[in-house]
Amino acid sequence: MAELSPLAAMRLAIEEGKKGAGFVSPNPLVGCVILDRDHNLLGKGHHAKVGENHAEINALAEIEDPGRLDGAHVFVTLEPCAHEGRTPSCAKILAKLPIASVTYGIQDPNPLVSGQGASILRAAGKSALLFREGLQSELEELAEIFFTNMREKRPFIALKVAQSLDGKVALNDGTSQWITGEASRAHVQYLRGCYDAVVTGMGTFLRDDPRMNSRHPRFENKAQKLVLLDPEGKSFAKIKDSNLLTVRAPEDLIIVTGPLGMEPPVGRHIEVPDAEGSFDMFSLLPALQAEGLHSLFVESGPYTASQFIRSKMIDRLYAFVAPILIGEGLDWTAGLRVGALDQAVRLSNPRVETFGPDFMITGRPQTRFS
Amino acid sequence: MAELSPLAAMRLAIEEGKKGAGFVSPNPLVGCVILDRDHNLLGKGHHAKVGENHAEINALAEIEDPGRLDGAHVFVTLEPCAHEGRTPSCAKILAKLPIASVTYGIQDPNPLVSGQGASILRAAGKSALLFREGLQSELEELAEIFFTNMREKRPFIALKVAQSLDGKVALNDGTSQWITGEASRAHVQYLRGCYDAVVTGMGTFLRDDPRMNSRHPRFENKAQKLVLLDPEGKSFAKIKDSNLLTVRAPEDLIIVTGPLGMEPPVGRHIEVPDAEGSFDMFSLLPALQAEGLHSLFVESGPYTASQFIRSKMIDRLYAFVAPILIGEGLDWTAGLRVGALDQAVRLSNPRVETFGPDFMITGRPQTRFS
Repeated sequence: MAELSPLAAMRLAIEEGKKGAGFVSPNPLVGCVILDRDHNLLGKGHHAKVGENHAEINALAEIEDPGRLDGAHVFVTLEPCAHEGRTPSCAKILAKLPIASVTYGIQDPNPLVSGQGASILRAAGKSALLFREGLQSELEELAEIFFTNMREKRPFIALKVAQSLDGKVALNDGTSQWITGEASRAHVQYLRGCYDAVVTGMGTFLRDDPRMNSRHPRFENKAQKLVLLDPEGKSFAKIKDSNLLTVRAPEDLIIVTGPLGMEPPVGRHIEVPDAEGSFDMFSLLPALQAEGLHSLFVESGPYTASQFIRSKMIDRLYAFVAPILIGEGLDWTAGLRVGALDQAVRLSNPRVETFGPDFMITGRPQTRFS
Repeated sequence: MAELSPLAAMRLAIEEGKKGAGFVSPNPLVGCVILDRDHNLLGKGHHAKVGENHAEINALAEIEDPGRLDGAHVFVTLEPCAHEGRTPSCAKILAKLPIASVTYGIQDPNPLVSGQGASILRAAGKSALLFREGLQSELEELAEIFFTNMREKRPFIALKVAQSLDGKVALNDGTSQWITGEASRAHVQYLRGCYDAVVTGMGTFLRDDPRMNSRHPRFENKAQKLVLLDPEGKSFAKIKDSNLLTVRAPEDLIIVTGPLGMEPPVGRHIEVPDAEGSFDMFSLLPALQAEGLHSLFVESGPYTASQFIRSKMIDRLYAFVAPILIGEGLDWTAGLRVGALDQAVRLSNPRVETFGPDFMITGRPQTRFS
């Protein structure tokens, strides 16, 4: 077996952590890799489901011969937890083992327990090290939903757009099926499942009568929550017969309106205050948080997308860029105005992935919250 | 030394061929790799300058012990030339060597000599093989200028744009410095040198008074031809004191106007017919070809860029995409209209490269010529 460098071990732990996507909310995605004293791989694991084992425990479970833990090195993407919750404290479990070191990617962001996991390990004579060899943006991205929840006490918001290279999301007549190709659309199915709920607007609902669920096999049995933004209650007449309800239970449909004084015929209902003819975008977040939603995947037409961008409410953008030019068409950033180029909305840690002929550019726009 | 597979050898030959960029016009970029009978690397070479050695000869020159050519395998990106020109026939030279095989990436596109290089080799008992293990788009891209020149008897046209992720090339007031970062701009300096001339429009000339030369060290001593598109002769008053002439000889400045019956005070002058208030884009090409220009790098403001795109005259697009959102601003595909999404201008063989925080998406739009 080949030796793994600390960098390779942490990279592997990150890949491992991603395997829990969509099932750990409100916990963070965490991955763990354990090397023997000679840096050969002993085991790896991830936090797979909220309420079940943490990553460290799943990695330990892979090791058949406990003798090989003597002098072993643990790499985990997040500081091992100090407290007993639904599961026992990982730091305390690791402290009792004959391992030599625990290297963690990021310190626990909760100020009440931050550093306590490391202290428990050190008190037991283990070396507990914050990883400093790179991968910072990858480590941060892995658990970004959790970090935003913890630091800012609000849901994390991702926006997906499917655009041409020249920035158009539809022809002038609204036609947008399909700008991007099959591989991109399959990845969108995956992403839908990675968040607590999909959010869409009335334009998309009225035009496409979409299902807006994840058809990715991984998420076949996951409840598919959907938030419909419907300021004026225009969906009420059609909602009972819509495709939205063919793929989800009524309680997984959340209809957000302005103060109408009128209930939708089905689904959960949230009223938020009015603002400038639409409802107040900023009031949305506490309302959705109260519904137990820790992360949102916004997938909508140009109007709703530009509302979110203008409001600086997007934590992560997924722009699927098809290698086509449309020319005249609809922009998804219409209404955004910047006075100078250094005031443009800049994505931090941008990266690109290829899906068939398309490119997915993703990064984190600055928000109004930070 | 590690053995090279045929795929690895051809990939290396392509990388080698790129090293001639900017200095071989009107010849193709060609790279060559020679392996010994056991597939170990013996030598590699590229066509470095028009009039000088072809790639095969430069690869042979790297081999110190001629005995190792016994049973050797030659990989070359283009069929070895059959004819004697400024340099001897590569096929005839290879035919005299004790090599076993010649594998070439693409058959010579000139119908008069296509296949003749291979015939010469086969007549001498060598195996001459067209490469069929992939890399087709990379092989085609390497010599794409030459192929367009040969097949369509016209210059090859590349267009560069620097845009935000949402497709804008400037703010509404025209501000475009700088949308992309330093690494992107450095690569543009390189690309300028790879073509026979840079083409720009009056908007850029009047606004920026640019030099529009390549400051890449590779091209320090290369003549920097520039084509200024100036339908109405508006540059005439300013051209003598412009920055364009601080970095190039007057004979390397080519001013294209409509039929003015008036000469610019400096530089070469081409008149092309009028069309719809501007000059006829299509008449440009024969005129520039007559100037000995085999490839053009168009770098301009939104107006000229969209003229080229609308006219379907672009063979390769280089879109440098900054990870920023601008919202309201200038489009570079304004005026392009497609009736349905399947009529959008689609890039074939799209690929992406990273330059600092930016992404360069490049590919080949379909042209009116093909």
